[in-house]
Amino acid sequence: MGGVRLAVVGGDGIGPEVVAEGLKVLSAVLPDVETTDYDLGATAYHRTGEPLPDSVRAELAGHDAILLGAIGDPSVPPGVLERGLLLRLRFAFDHYVNLRPAKIWPGTATPLAHPGEVDFVVIREGTEGLYVGAGGTLAKGFPHEVATEESINTRVGVQRVVEDAFTRAAARPRKHLTLVHKTNVLTQAGGLWSRVFAEVSERFPAVQTAYQHVDAASMFMVTDPSRYDVIVTDNLFGDILTDIAAAVTGGIGLAASANINPTGAFPSMFEPVHGSAPDIAGKGVADPIATILSTALLLEHLGHPKAALRVQEAVAAELIARTAGAPLRTAEVGDRVATAVS
Amino acid sequence: MGGVRLAVVGGDGIGPEVVAEGLKVLSAVLPDVETTDYDLGATAYHRTGEPLPDSVRAELAGHDAILLGAIGDPSVPPGVLERGLLLRLRFAFDHYVNLRPAKIWPGTATPLAHPGEVDFVVIREGTEGLYVGAGGTLAKGFPHEVATEESINTRVGVQRVVEDAFTRAAARPRKHLTLVHKTNVLTQAGGLWSRVFAEVSERFPAVQTAYQHVDAASMFMVTDPSRYDVIVTDNLFGDILTDIAAAVTGGIGLAASANINPTGAFPSMFEPVHGSAPDIAGKGVADPIATILSTALLLEHLGHPKAALRVQEAVAAELIARTAGAPLRTAEVGDRVATAVS
Ligand SMILES: CC(C)[C@H](C(=O)O)[C@@H](O)C(=O)O
Ligand SMILES: CC(C)[C@H](C(=O)O)[C@@H](O)C(=O)O
Repeated sequence: MGGVRLAVVGGDGIGPEVVAEGLKVLSAVLPDVETTDYDLGATAYHRTGEPLPDSVRAELAGHDAILLGAIGDPSVPPGVLERGLLLRLRFAFDHYVNLRPAKIWPGTATPLAHPGEVDFVVIREGTEGLYVGAGGTLAKGFPHEVATEESINTRVGVQRVVEDAFTRAAARPRKHLTLVHKTNVLTQAGGLWSRVFAEVSERFPAVQTAYQHVDAASMFMVTDPSRYDVIVTDNLFGDILTDIAAAVTGGIGLAASANINPTGAFPSMFEPVHGSAPDIAGKGVADPIATILSTALLLEHLGHPKAALRVQEAVAAELIARTAGAPLRTAEVGDRVATAVS
Repeated sequence: MGGVRLAVVGGDGIGPEVVAEGLKVLSAVLPDVETTDYDLGATAYHRTGEPLPDSVRAELAGHDAILLGAIGDPSVPPGVLERGLLLRLRFAFDHYVNLRPAKIWPGTATPLAHPGEVDFVVIREGTEGLYVGAGGTLAKGFPHEVATEESINTRVGVQRVVEDAFTRAAARPRKHLTLVHKTNVLTQAGGLWSRVFAEVSERFPAVQTAYQHVDAASMFMVTDPSRYDVIVTDNLFGDILTDIAAAVTGGIGLAASANINPTGAFPSMFEPVHGSAPDIAGKGVADPIATILSTALLLEHLGHPKAALRVQEAVAAELIARTAGAPLRTAEVGDRVATAVS
C-alpha cells in the first residue's frame, strides 16, 4: 500500500493549533503520511476575496483525505466562510454521511448527574435539507420584507444516508437505529424520511428501529442518553443533536466528526465538531482531543482499524490521567498521545 | 369586572385528565370562571373527519382565553391534528408570542449534576418560520422524488415578537436577552432576525443582548443554563430549545406555556408543553403541574397577577413536599394545590 496523501486545512482561530497535534499523532501511528497544507479561512479570504478558489478545490480533490481544523472568524460576515468554504467542501465532495460519535470516556466529567453508559453515533445527512442555501430576501429593509429558507430533500439523498445508517447499526452489538425528524409538522420532508426509513428497514430485519420527534430526542439526550445506539437525521437536526451529544458526553473539546463520501469518488474530510474559538486562539490551551479522535475516524475510513484503535486507547489513557481543573497545554496533550501510540 | 369566559379543549390522551386539575385550581383561585368544553382531538376527528370545523373556530374566538390539554393520537396520521387543529389555532388566533418559562423549582430533581440557579423564559415565535406548512412533494415514490419545506419569515412577524421579548427582558431584574438563530447557515432568515434584533435593541438601551447559534445554545442549555434570562427565537428552534429547557429543569411534566396574542384581538391559549402521552392516558398518573402552571400564565395574562402568584406558590409547596419516587396521582395533586390556593 502506498502512502496517504493528506490535505491539511488548519483554518481559523485554534484550528491550526489542534490540527498540529492531530498530525503529530497521525504520523506517530502511520509512517507514510504525505501532507500538503492549504491556507484557507479568514486570513486567506481577506487576502484573495475568495473563500475557496476553484483551483484549490480541484487540488484538494486529488487527495486521499482532508484534515480540517476550524473555519470562522468575527472579521468575516456570518455565512461567508461557512457557506463559501466549509459547506462548499461538504457539498462539492458529496459528504453525505456526517458521522459524529458520542461517548462518555472513562474519567470524563459530564454535566449530567447520572449519565449512564453513553456510546452512540449520530449519522447526520450532510448535503441537503436547510443547508442547501435555497433562500431569498424580498423587500430588504422595507416593512413588508420577507425572508425564506428552503429545505430540499431528495429520495436519493435520504435513501443513501439511511442505508448507510442501517448498515452501521447492523454492525454494532445493539443493532438499534432511531430516526429523528419532525414529521408532525414538517409533513413533506418528514414523510419522505419516514417512508424511506420504513422501506430500507425491511432489508435490515436484524436492526430494531425507533422514531422520535427532534424536540423529544433533544430532551431524551439529556434525560436518558444511554438509550441511543445509532441515530440518523437530517442536516439541521443533526447539527443541533450532535452539540447536545457533545455537551452530555463531556464537552465540545472531545467531539470528533467525519464528513464521509462512502463511494470514494471524493476525499472524505475529518474535523473536530468545535469551532475556531477566537477567544482562546494562540494561547496553546485548546484541547486537541477532538481533532485527535477525528484522525482515528480518518484511520478507520482509510482502512487502518488497528491504528485507529491505538489512537482511541491512547486518548482513553490521556483522559483518565487528567486531573479536573489542571491546566491543559495543547502541545503537551499531543505529545503524550503521540508517545503513547508510537 | 365580569367573569372569565374560558374555552376548554381537553384533547387527547392525558389532556382531559390534566385539564380537569388545572380547572380545579383555577376555579379555586378565581370565583367567576365560566367554562365551555369543546370536544376536539382524535375522537372528534374520527367522528367528523374535520380536525377543527370553522364553526367551532368561530365559537372559540368569542372566548377570553382557551385552556388546552394535549393533541395527538397514534390512530391519526402524523401532522393531521397538529397542523389541522393545534397549529391552526395558533395561526388563526395570531399567537405570535409563544411564552415558555423554564425554572428549577426548589426540591425538584434535575438530570444535571450542578444546574445552578435556573430561571429564564423562552419567547418562541408562534406563527411563522418552518411551521407555515409551505412544502411540497414532487414525484412521490419515484426515484427522483423531492420533498421541500419552506421557512417563511416576515419583518412584521419578526419585529413584533422581538419587541415583545425586549419589553419582557426590560421588566426583569437581569434585563438580558439572547437571540438564538443559525445566521451562519440560514443567512436569509438569520439576516432578517439579526437586523431586526439590532434595530429594536436601540430602543431598549437598558437591555443587554447576546447572540448564539442554535447548536451552541442547545449545548449551553445543558452545560450552563443559568446564563439565560430571556431568549427569543424562531418557531422551530423554540420548539427544540424549550424541550431541552424542560429536560434540564426537571422534566416535561412541569413545563407550562402560553400562546399569546398580545393585541387582544383573539383569545390567547394556555397549554402544557407535553404531549398526549397515550401510554399513560386514563391511568390517573400524569403530572398536572404543567397545566396548573399554565393556568398561572393565564391568570397573569388576564390581569390577575396576585392570583397567578398564589398558584405558583402552591405549586412550589407541592413540589417541595414531593418525595422522589413516590407514586403520583393526578387528581390528588390537583386537590392539594386547589386547597392551598383556596
Ligand atoms: C460552522 C457550521 C456551518 C457547522 C454546521 O452548522 O454544520 C458546525 O456547526 C458543525 O456542526 O460542523
Ligand atoms: C405537537 C407539536 C405540533 C408542537 C410543536 O411542535 O409546536 C409541540 O411540540 C409543542 O412544542 O407545542
